Amino acid sequence: MTTPALLAIDWGTTRFRAYLLDRAGAVLERVSSDDGIMAVKPGGFPAVLAIRCGMWLARHPDIPVIMAGMVGSRNGWIEAPYRACPATASEIAGAMAEVDIGNGRKARIVPGLSTRDAAGAPDVMRGEETLALGTGIENGTVILPGTHSKWVHIESGKIKSFATFMTGEFYATLLSQTILGKLREEPDDAAGFTKGLEAAKRPGGLTHQAFAARTSVLLGDMSGHEVAPFLSGLLIGSEVDAGLAMGQSGGDIVVIAEGIIVDSYTKALAARGRVCRLMATEECFTAGLARLLKA
Amino acid sequence: MTTPALLAIDWGTTRFRAYLLDRAGAVLERVSSDDGIMAVKPGGFPAVLAIRCGMWLARHPDIPVIMAGMVGSRNGWIEAPYRACPATASEIAGAMAEVDIGNGRKARIVPGLSTRDAAGAPDVMRGEETLALGTGIENGTVILPGTHSKWVHIESGKIKSFATFMTGEFYATLLSQTILGKLREEPDDAAGFTKGLEAAKRPGGLTHQAFAARTSVLLGDMSGHEVAPFLSGLLIGSEVDAGLAMGQSGGDIVVIAEGIIVDSYTKALAARGRVCRLMATEECFTAGLARLLKA
Repeated sequence: MTTPALLAIDWGTTRFRAYLLDRAGAVLERVSSDDGIMAVKPGGFPAVLAIRCGMWLARHPDIPVIMAGMVGSRNGWIEAPYRACPATASEIAGAMAEVDIGNGRKARIVPGLSTRDAAGAPDVMRGEETLALGTGIENGTVILPGTHSKWVHIESGKIKSFATFMTGEFYATLLSQTILGKLREEPDDAAGFTKGLEAAKRPGGLTHQAFAARTSVLLGDMSGHEVAPFLSGLLIGSEVDAGLAMGQSGGDIVVIAEGIIVDSYTKALAARGRVCRLMATEECFTAGLARLLKA
Repeated sequence: MTTPALLAIDWGTTRFRAYLLDRAGAVLERVSSDDGIMAVKPGGFPAVLAIRCGMWLARHPDIPVIMAGMVGSRNGWIEAPYRACPATASEIAGAMAEVDIGNGRKARIVPGLSTRDAAGAPDVMRGEETLALGTGIENGTVILPGTHSKWVHIESGKIKSFATFMTGEFYATLLSQTILGKLREEPDDAAGFTKGLEAAKRPGGLTHQAFAARTSVLLGDMSGHEVAPFLSGLLIGSEVDAGLAMGQSGGDIVVIAEGIIVDSYTKALAARGRVCRLMATEECFTAGLARLLKA
């Protein structure tokens, strides 16, 4: 049997996921639960860790424990302050915070990263730095679609900068609260997604092109079934155009995602002449923590 | 006493406003009420008109009656089909629909306008065509801020094209439903508005720059009191940049608005080196209908 070498914990807002990894970063055992940090009472973090991973901790008293994600935020176990970009894996590893997990044992928490664009506007992320490092790419861009999508730009193996797009939150909010939602008919017709990708390239910006969906339905150019996919294509297309423009021009593009959103980003990138490689969240997380352990 | 020459009615979604005008378009008398088309039962339009304007109609049996606004929409008295741009005042006047208002008397309803941009994407407006004509400008742009802001481009006195921006609806929705609303503190600090205008010029687009507000508060760059003005500046700045880029480069800029929004648009245009002239809605409406009567 392979010897465990690391207890790696992905502790986010809504989910708790722990992995027992071997020296090569392969998953030997895994547990997951709904004990995200929002569900943990103040001071309750050690108890949750003991309940979910106590058996592993007892069985393997000497392996390191590293956590990443919102567990290191202001509302988490302890605040692991943001490390400024650019940042190498070893600089991130060197900035980890430490917490006591009982019996004199320590766990480390990966810090989030902060960045500033040329105009000085700040951005932050927490958890995505570990996933981005886990892709192993030397030069290129890692895209993490979601409520707040992240585009992480990697140069010579270090995280150079990144940018957040509120794509998922805009989609959900605009569809449920504006005139666009009233026009939506289900089931969705994917033809609207391609129209949305096209609209993202046209002048006028988001607030103008979103209204075009309403007018197109009114004038019979588009069906109500296309409204939600159109809005998705418009928002993702805008994100992809801006993300590509803000990063370096070459290098790999890796998308870390599961489910239907994979297809949306693959299509949006293809419509801009770009090919992407897909990776799964668990694969990137475990590889990222294994890399930080060695760094 | 001046002789009345026109009964002009601005019948929108939520308000009913009627004006008795003289030959020069000056207001002799006015009434207004909450009888917007949403408050009128099917078939109830003649009765509302009789209640609000019956005395004027009886006193002046020969003057023309012209209505504009959502009264000419699918949910109004009768649908006055959209007239395609470009459109002169006389072409719009020639496309008016007619309804029977009792005693063999007719009223006319101004049609809305439709347009298509270079890529074929459609846009529509109803009511704003009358206000735009009422500015009397020969070449330039008329801006009508609101839930769905309109930018109307006028060339040689005719309405050449226009564009809608969902600025007001995005503002209200994003502020009440997203992470931005949770950060907002009142009272508002207007310093955020200028920061939002600046952010609109930076790369990344709306979904990225909106997140910058959240990060700026988190990192102490901005106070919660600046969040709402920042979002307003970001959205209005984006609208102004896109609107100026989509129209002709020269000519007058007229903003038709009342209240606090006047200041926001004046500042946003000034930040882009443009001066605007302000006009009041009533003034533009009555001048617009007087112009359509003569056309």
